[in-house]
Amino acid sequence: MDNARYMASPIGHRARPPLREFDLIRSLRRLCAGRDASVRRGIGDDTAVTAGPPGLDLLLTTDLLAEQVHFDRRTADFPDIGFRSAAANLSDIAAMGGEPKYLLIALALPNSATARQVRGLYRGMMAACRPHHVLVIGGDVSASAGGWFIGVTAVGTVERGRALLRSGARVGDAIYVTGTLGDSLAGLALANERIGRAGRLPRTAILPARQRRFLLKRHLRPDARVTVGRWLVRERLATSAIDLSDGLSGDIRHLCEESRAGAEIDTASLPLSQAGLAYAEATGSDPAKMALTGGEDYELLFTTPVRLCGRLERAARRKGFHLTKIGTIKPARFGVQARWAGGLKPLPVTSYRHFQSPRGES
Amino acid sequence: MDNARYMASPIGHRARPPLREFDLIRSLRRLCAGRDASVRRGIGDDTAVTAGPPGLDLLLTTDLLAEQVHFDRRTADFPDIGFRSAAANLSDIAAMGGEPKYLLIALALPNSATARQVRGLYRGMMAACRPHHVLVIGGDVSASAGGWFIGVTAVGTVERGRALLRSGARVGDAIYVTGTLGDSLAGLALANERIGRAGRLPRTAILPARQRRFLLKRHLRPDARVTVGRWLVRERLATSAIDLSDGLSGDIRHLCEESRAGAEIDTASLPLSQAGLAYAEATGSDPAKMALTGGEDYELLFTTPVRLCGRLERAARRKGFHLTKIGTIKPARFGVQARWAGGLKPLPVTSYRHFQSPRGES
Repeated sequence: MDNARYMASPIGHRARPPLREFDLIRSLRRLCAGRDASVRRGIGDDTAVTAGPPGLDLLLTTDLLAEQVHFDRRTADFPDIGFRSAAANLSDIAAMGGEPKYLLIALALPNSATARQVRGLYRGMMAACRPHHVLVIGGDVSASAGGWFIGVTAVGTVERGRALLRSGARVGDAIYVTGTLGDSLAGLALANERIGRAGRLPRTAILPARQRRFLLKRHLRPDARVTVGRWLVRERLATSAIDLSDGLSGDIRHLCEESRAGAEIDTASLPLSQAGLAYAEATGSDPAKMALTGGEDYELLFTTPVRLCGRLERAARRKGFHLTKIGTIKPARFGVQARWAGGLKPLPVTSYRHFQSPRGES
Repeated sequence: MDNARYMASPIGHRARPPLREFDLIRSLRRLCAGRDASVRRGIGDDTAVTAGPPGLDLLLTTDLLAEQVHFDRRTADFPDIGFRSAAANLSDIAAMGGEPKYLLIALALPNSATARQVRGLYRGMMAACRPHHVLVIGGDVSASAGGWFIGVTAVGTVERGRALLRSGARVGDAIYVTGTLGDSLAGLALANERIGRAGRLPRTAILPARQRRFLLKRHLRPDARVTVGRWLVRERLATSAIDLSDGLSGDIRHLCEESRAGAEIDTASLPLSQAGLAYAEATGSDPAKMALTGGEDYELLFTTPVRLCGRLERAARRKGFHLTKIGTIKPARFGVQARWAGGLKPLPVTSYRHFQSPRGES
């Protein structure tokens, strides 16, 4: 989860979220302001940080995924839904530079749910957990009068005092992202085509099957960037980090708010995959806008002091990590701006819609 | 949560749960069977138990509460709903003998939700947390297409290796409960009367206002038995424990399953409050049946070796703890039976319905 996020993406709801979410989060944060020495970080980051086993801090994060808001059973099967639910939480641990250890799952099931579906969901979750040696240690199953709901709590550890907070970015730091951006957005659009949202042959029909599969997989089975996050902590190469769940445009803003800083993003440098570029071309989309607004890529965005950039980039090449420098941290008064061919423009405040409304209210 | 429970209490749903829940839980437990040295207890107890800060184990539990299943906005206001949601999770920590430390809250909100309602919910949670010095350190707020959903994760600690597991009961141990039983069931019935489920003047109208308030409070603002749980661990007075959320009849069965034992419950000894007895009399209910089947009392049920019973009872009197011996652990082949005036009878397998269906499908 974003520990202080309002995910304003209801499908079949008003486009405007029902609450003024930023005010709400701010007031909840005030309500929960009590602290003690064991709490190193409360509401406001990818995870909470508390005292852990000897030499370690504990990372705790929870997330609630709702049918028709975060997933659609017509475009994703249960193992895929399970995989993404788990991966989204592992990604929060990765963004802190932590090692994910455990998941606890709480399900609310409608009357129509079958044991086979629940087992499918769990199998997907286990598949996301296995590469990272994460164990599912708790589960609650209850009834729902309104569709499927999936509560996931992830627990991880990180070397004491070394968690990558959103608040650590300093003016002048370089901004990096892992992997490629916008793939999940494209994969989602392809998945939605399957349920007949396009009345005619979709423009994406020209994409080769290999690229379609790549984009669908990026959407349905995202890989949490645990290895990169751990490496950044071990090598002390980053000052702050966040995972890209809302989309770059929203997430860089979260990081800047917590760091009380601004940012300049160079749109020409945003990394897209070949398949992502092909999708943009087929649909007439602007690749940079796709990279800025597409959510749920679950890549990491992090900041590195300029004097460490050379070392970072050389070491990443050796390790085979795909990193791209996309901008620079600026003073708060600069705001969050993107450099386009025509000059600087403020980044719009967007909130990612997890998938298009099949009821046409998007 | 019950870490491996199917809460079969949908309102407005078929009375029979949609899944064969015990089979499902068993198969999920098998799916999640992987362990490592840091996991002392996975699925199957009130909380999971893992390695914690120096000298301590960590207790982790998560729960998902659904509108129209676990709470009804017509019979409880938001602060009350928040209080109960938090208390139910603190109670799971209490049942392990642990000290609750943190809550993480994940909400899914319908379009109609207001910031005022969310703040009310949080205020209720904080009120349940405050006496136990529990901090809310994480929160996620997202959208729901089907009513309010409240995900609560509780984190606690307990002295290493000393958590009160469900599996520790031994044949011959005495069975105790804290407080009084059935009050929440009676309080729930009183709350339901407010929404006009009774067509005529309810039989409970003869209850004095003081008793009505007591029963309503027991339902809406249950107090997690943290102090008693901590004391049982510190004094090493219990071999096993569970909290009474499903109701005695169901929860003693969970404990017996995990301990591979049976139990004999003496119905004449079941503790009821004065108000609970008055409610039973007014409604013509059998008090013992009320105590056996009423859920959500959030009292503790625990077992103590016979040789420690004298010490336990003397110390409890000194401390002002209200404990009642209600039965004895038996060999597994005995099953779970209740002694009535007419002799022994197997306890029926019941699943507590959190509240009566207002749509009349109960």
